[in-house]
Amino acid sequence: TNNFDLKEHPHSRLNILTGDWILVSPHRTKRPWQGKVEATQANDRPAYDPQCYLCPTNKRADGSENPDYKGSFVFTNDYSSLLLNTPDGGLNDDELLVANSQKGICRVISFSPRHDLTLPQMETAEIRKVVDVWQSEFENLATYPWIKHIQIFENKGDIMGCSNPHPHGQIWAQNSIPVEVAKETQQQKKHFEQKGRSLLGDYLALELKRAERVIFENDHFAVLVPFWAVWPYETMIISKRHVTSILYFTDDEKDALADAIKRLTVRYDNMFETSFPYSAGMHQSPVNMGEHPYWHWHMHFYPPLLRSATVKKFMVGYEMLANPQRDITAEYAAEKLRGLSEIHYKVKG
Amino acid sequence: TNNFDLKEHPHSRLNILTGDWILVSPHRTKRPWQGKVEATQANDRPAYDPQCYLCPTNKRADGSENPDYKGSFVFTNDYSSLLLNTPDGGLNDDELLVANSQKGICRVISFSPRHDLTLPQMETAEIRKVVDVWQSEFENLATYPWIKHIQIFENKGDIMGCSNPHPHGQIWAQNSIPVEVAKETQQQKKHFEQKGRSLLGDYLALELKRAERVIFENDHFAVLVPFWAVWPYETMIISKRHVTSILYFTDDEKDALADAIKRLTVRYDNMFETSFPYSAGMHQSPVNMGEHPYWHWHMHFYPPLLRSATVKKFMVGYEMLANPQRDITAEYAAEKLRGLSEIHYKVKG
Ligand SMILES: O=P(O)(O)O[C@H]1O[C@H](CO)[C@@H](O)[C@H](O)[C@H]1O
Ligand SMILES: O=P(O)(O)O[C@H]1O[C@H](CO)[C@@H](O)[C@H](O)[C@H]1O
Repeated sequence: TNNFDLKEHPHSRLNILTGDWILVSPHRTKRPWQGKVEATQANDRPAYDPQCYLCPTNKRADGSENPDYKGSFVFTNDYSSLLLNTPDGGLNDDELLVANSQKGICRVISFSPRHDLTLPQMETAEIRKVVDVWQSEFENLATYPWIKHIQIFENKGDIMGCSNPHPHGQIWAQNSIPVEVAKETQQQKKHFEQKGRSLLGDYLALELKRAERVIFENDHFAVLVPFWAVWPYETMIISKRHVTSILYFTDDEKDALADAIKRLTVRYDNMFETSFPYSAGMHQSPVNMGEHPYWHWHMHFYPPLLRSATVKKFMVGYEMLANPQRDITAEYAAEKLRGLSEIHYKVKG
Repeated sequence: TNNFDLKEHPHSRLNILTGDWILVSPHRTKRPWQGKVEATQANDRPAYDPQCYLCPTNKRADGSENPDYKGSFVFTNDYSSLLLNTPDGGLNDDELLVANSQKGICRVISFSPRHDLTLPQMETAEIRKVVDVWQSEFENLATYPWIKHIQIFENKGDIMGCSNPHPHGQIWAQNSIPVEVAKETQQQKKHFEQKGRSLLGDYLALELKRAERVIFENDHFAVLVPFWAVWPYETMIISKRHVTSILYFTDDEKDALADAIKRLTVRYDNMFETSFPYSAGMHQSPVNMGEHPYWHWHMHFYPPLLRSATVKKFMVGYEMLANPQRDITAEYAAEKLRGLSEIHYKVKG
């Protein structure tokens, strides 16, 4: 055909949340791969590892001892990137060398006492307890009046820089608005001011109508591959109700979020029958900065794998210097994810 | 001390070229590493590999045969991400699903007939020939009136997604301005309009005065760790003369650029006595879009290694969702690079 076709021809897509563009090369998966093949991560961990600083009753770097906890366990990172006691200050040398002091709190959340599990292997009821901890941590951190942004995230798998395989996530709270969140704030605000409605609400309504990129939904959340996805199997969880942060989720919504995370991460693991690596995290309204009615809670999943359990997508030369680029379409990725089972491959047989 | 100190306290720095901020956590290298350790790449390659599609006289995917070339060899990528014959078109569904057709040309440049070399192992005179090819490719690609941007880059090492160890680089030319280049255009334009001078010219003058982040210079180029570096040993080559693109480099400048690349990449290899991986590329003025007098040619090097030949910096959860973050200061990195020999460790003994 001579007509432009998103399934076939190279094109750029707009990320309406950041205002940035991404390059899509649908024809490009055909190229041969002689490049890096990742080792598969050892999958057989003991339920308890005496060397792990996240396992119950073990010692941590600061000398303290973990309690014999049953659900989740939260503490301040012994190697925090942001610290509570940073003095104020900065530098401005001719507007060429510009720096500002940064203050913050970094928290670590062990998702389970079990060293050998990951989110997709946990029961939905156990994930629900993690959601509760995220909510209460968000609430507590927001009581520091100087904290402006709270980033809840997880790095899963050593390929994603995770330094300990014990299932855990992190929260970095700080006194300024990070770059990605500033972009999303601006884009959501613009749409809200123009149309009086949530950008992601309008987007979700259109996606549910088109049904091309939606993977599944429950009563309170939809899970889809965003039109502008960068990573091969990137997804988003969007709340059906327009709420600005996790603070406002009801018990039903928290159950439904746990259900969405469970079902999505099980599908991920089933893709290549491996513990599927990703970095994931929530984007939500800044805190202690007045009202942000345009903010719409959502969660991004950025998984690196492209072709198999051992070949990932590299965001390198062109991507770093010029523009993010992907090799399969969002629609193809959604179709693949839709076709996968919601029963974890390890419990299947 | 209670006073704010860039060497000691967490802070953010402004990237004056993009307008983005990065987070610096100088105290954070102390944390233990139980995470991913990369395999070192096999270093003993034959001078000629019959399986390599870049070696002289070998067959390529399109059925053609490489000439028995002596210097560099350029051809259009058999698996191009951008294609010449993409039909025009696009999509705009309610400003929520927005896409544009993308047209372009992707070129591959073998730097040397020798399968076993890399840029730091080549003679400066051989690198100079690569510079000539970059210049003539830039000139040729700019003769297509619809081409607006030409990205010259190299992915070195399998850890940077390089799919073939034969020394080579790439050029992606396209009909639109990529995201990173659009940001640098805007920032340079703003400064030029306000001060009537090149942003990078002013920045370079200040860096040469401060001498804290400069690694070395020759008659026509300075090599430094930018104040806002994201990657642990990120560097920039900046031309002393304010030229908008490689098109305007004189013979002397081309010799000097080859010298700068040789000396920088040798220092890199000497850092951990390994073939130091990186993605590198030039940023220069858009083409066929009128004058861009504010554009100042420069080249970025983004190497991933942090602690050793096998432990890299991961740009993951916090970095993807919130803000780029680094663990050592730019000043520390510059000091380390300054202290390294300009004789390659493999020829030393
Ligand atoms: O074209 P190559 O070398 O096969 O591919 C490499 O560089 C490209 C441009 O940065 C990336 O899109 C690929 O992910 C990477 O593997
Ligand atoms: O804090 P961790 O798990 O040791 O570290 C990991 O996550 C951080 C936040 O995304 C990154 O800065 C590190 O590069 C990564 O290794």
